Amino acid sequence: MSHSSFVSPNTGRPVRAVLFDTFGTVVDWRSGIAQQVDAFAAERNLPLNGLAFADTWRGGYYPAMAKIKSGERDYTPLDVLHRENLENAFSAHGVDPKSISAGDVDRLNHAWEHLPGWDDSIEGLTRLKSRYVVGPLSNGNTALLVNMGKNASLPWDVVIGLDLLRTYKPNPDAYLGAARLLRLEPGEIMLAAAHNYDLKAAREAGFATGFILRATEHGPDQTTDLEAAADWDISVSSIIELAEELKV
Amino acid sequence: MSHSSFVSPNTGRPVRAVLFDTFGTVVDWRSGIAQQVDAFAAERNLPLNGLAFADTWRGGYYPAMAKIKSGERDYTPLDVLHRENLENAFSAHGVDPKSISAGDVDRLNHAWEHLPGWDDSIEGLTRLKSRYVVGPLSNGNTALLVNMGKNASLPWDVVIGLDLLRTYKPNPDAYLGAARLLRLEPGEIMLAAAHNYDLKAAREAGFATGFILRATEHGPDQTTDLEAAADWDISVSSIIELAEELKV
Repeated sequence: MSHSSFVSPNTGRPVRAVLFDTFGTVVDWRSGIAQQVDAFAAERNLPLNGLAFADTWRGGYYPAMAKIKSGERDYTPLDVLHRENLENAFSAHGVDPKSISAGDVDRLNHAWEHLPGWDDSIEGLTRLKSRYVVGPLSNGNTALLVNMGKNASLPWDVVIGLDLLRTYKPNPDAYLGAARLLRLEPGEIMLAAAHNYDLKAAREAGFATGFILRATEHGPDQTTDLEAAADWDISVSSIIELAEELKV
Repeated sequence: MSHSSFVSPNTGRPVRAVLFDTFGTVVDWRSGIAQQVDAFAAERNLPLNGLAFADTWRGGYYPAMAKIKSGERDYTPLDVLHRENLENAFSAHGVDPKSISAGDVDRLNHAWEHLPGWDDSIEGLTRLKSRYVVGPLSNGNTALLVNMGKNASLPWDVVIGLDLLRTYKPNPDAYLGAARLLRLEPGEIMLAAAHNYDLKAAREAGFATGFILRATEHGPDQTTDLEAAADWDISVSSIIELAEELKV
């Protein structure tokens, strides 16, 4: 493979694997969650707005991780955090979570396993897979990512949920541990992500970096990550364009 | 998915995932290693017989694992054991391993990542994947299995190398840890394997079990695992037949 693989100007090494941030980079979590929440609310006659609810639910993610990063709380997998944040989101939107059966809340929590890929995701990943190892490197836990990948037909070679390493990005252990798991040098791996903070941490760990603009991840009024914040190795607007830049 | 998934008579639960022993069950390690050893020997004019060498090399596997299982040695991934056993195999076949460059020995050690699937493997796995999560549950380490899967076009949904759990089958932790990783109950997973000892341990851990006869794994004079040694849930002669039994 090596003779024609992309060589990162920053790491000076041929890339062997392209690992992807997943939520926002590969799948459209906001539309996917909104649609499932709207269907859930319609069946039960609940006064919920799917998009607003999705923003609230996802909004609990960074604060929940922050407590783990700070050591205030032991490592807890993302699906458990989602479940807690879902109850909080119900309360924030005027629905008593105790008015819904635990089984129904559990089922809605699996919405994160049923998210649509962006239009370019399957084609782009399939092309990249012809030369590179492709997989998620995600704060999601592995079971969640495996089911998501299956439901969205994402052709992963390997699934790296950070429950495997009991950490969360952007902790350096997340990137370095993934490299050890794949038996690659950090410089032989590219992180592809729609989020500059993730790419910054990946570069600090020695990874090659690819920015993928996802200008509507947070909806039409998005204000963050609308451009590459540094000279990442590659900066594109889709996974298909990433494949082209990586010569496949 | 649940309404039509196979229900194990032994566990009473619908199967959600089918995990595979890999060496011998999914890929033909003996022919694959022999062919690569023969090519390696021909290039260097070494007096090696590929099939005999493959048997010797693989023969070092159980004794090396035994030291780890007994606690005599810390957990060591399979690719490291293979590298040690390769040097021993050279010596046993009259070749001084020091007469070969370390780089060349390293390259030959990657032969385990280039093994052919049995004729039925890709079709059988592809059919199973339409309804079940499919993955290896192998004593191989994850990087080895990822590269093997890519080279042999095995359509895994997830790759579970036991370096993830720092144990080796048939330790119960291997099976129970895989279930935890997939967030499934043991009874929702079927182990498919060509080796009765592996199925016995899987059943003891609560898994459903599928025996796949591989009568020539060890060549034409094979004496082991020529029949199911217990009333496994399913007993077949190919992964395609397994898919049929599992109704896909």
